[in-house]
Amino acid sequence: MTDSATRDPAALRMLDAAEALIRRHGPAKATVVDVARALGMSHGNVYRHFPSKAALREAVVARWLHAVVEPLEPILADPTPAPERLIRYIRTLAGLKRQKVLGDPELFAAYHLLAEEHRDAVAAHVATLRGHLATILHQGTAAGDWRVADPEGTAVLLLEATMRFHHPHHVRDQAGDETAPARLEAILGLLVKGLRPN
Amino acid sequence: MTDSATRDPAALRMLDAAEALIRRHGPAKATVVDVARALGMSHGNVYRHFPSKAALREAVVARWLHAVVEPLEPILADPTPAPERLIRYIRTLAGLKRQKVLGDPELFAAYHLLAEEHRDAVAAHVATLRGHLATILHQGTAAGDWRVADPEGTAVLLLEATMRFHHPHHVRDQAGDETAPARLEAILGLLVKGLRPN
Repeated sequence: MTDSATRDPAALRMLDAAEALIRRHGPAKATVVDVARALGMSHGNVYRHFPSKAALREAVVARWLHAVVEPLEPILADPTPAPERLIRYIRTLAGLKRQKVLGDPELFAAYHLLAEEHRDAVAAHVATLRGHLATILHQGTAAGDWRVADPEGTAVLLLEATMRFHHPHHVRDQAGDETAPARLEAILGLLVKGLRPN
Repeated sequence: MTDSATRDPAALRMLDAAEALIRRHGPAKATVVDVARALGMSHGNVYRHFPSKAALREAVVARWLHAVVEPLEPILADPTPAPERLIRYIRTLAGLKRQKVLGDPELFAAYHLLAEEHRDAVAAHVATLRGHLATILHQGTAAGDWRVADPEGTAVLLLEATMRFHHPHHVRDQAGDETAPARLEAILGLLVKGLRPN
């Protein structure tokens, strides 16, 4: 989502309309023409904020992904020790993804299709998660919890080692998998112990 | 693959013929009729070993998956310490999968389609990998390298935490990802350090 789209109330109304259309009719309906019709305004009005169907869809995907990131942000500024927050961050991320995928599977499928078309928005989302984890790793190094020389690189490792629990492809296959949260905790336990000095 | 199919030279010839057909014409060609024609024998002859198309295809998938497991087996009996062998096992598994997926992407795609239809063969394959890792974990406990109370459960965790590097879905997306082996080593380092006593 561009900054202007985030701030402008008209653009936000257009994104709301696009989301409502996707929810009701599937991803094919997220077009400038459909959004204009739904809001009873001219196409030109929508094009002023979203210069193409692709731009509109990318903004919709970015906002959808942002809804996962937002509840994670307070974990960065929390006063509890970094190792604990690292675990809480990934646990919460997995829970939010699980909730999105399993809570409304059809809406998830529609957004997933859109996201496949807009890999840039997905890449930006993953970069945000990586940056957050790097921040916590850096805070832990500063506090003497561990000595992580390359927080960005280590953030990649932590996301990869837990992808079974937050990658949409796997979360979808996990609907009846009730021991998944316990397995994630065990993996996080091993990884955080692995980060700590001997 | 059933035991009789493994041992019987006639059944092995039928599996070879099925593999050659898949390689040349794609997965649709792995049928009893096609195999009988390719070997110039009666359908009845093939049906005696593989009572249905599904049985034939499942045996083909099982043999394909077995080709990944076979080179891993010597690692179980190797005299080097368990932590080192645990890392070597998963590193070798990832290398073999990578080789299969990237070495002949079209053949892989054909087998992958068959495997999606025969989840039992895939589940048996994963159970074998899990059993192998549980053996190494058990050996490490016996040698005092770590104290792992539930080797089977811990084997599941180790496979899940490294799935980015051996799950076909991800390996396929990794064609140009040259730092993947180094990242796997780093994750294995964290996990094995996490398993060790304080």
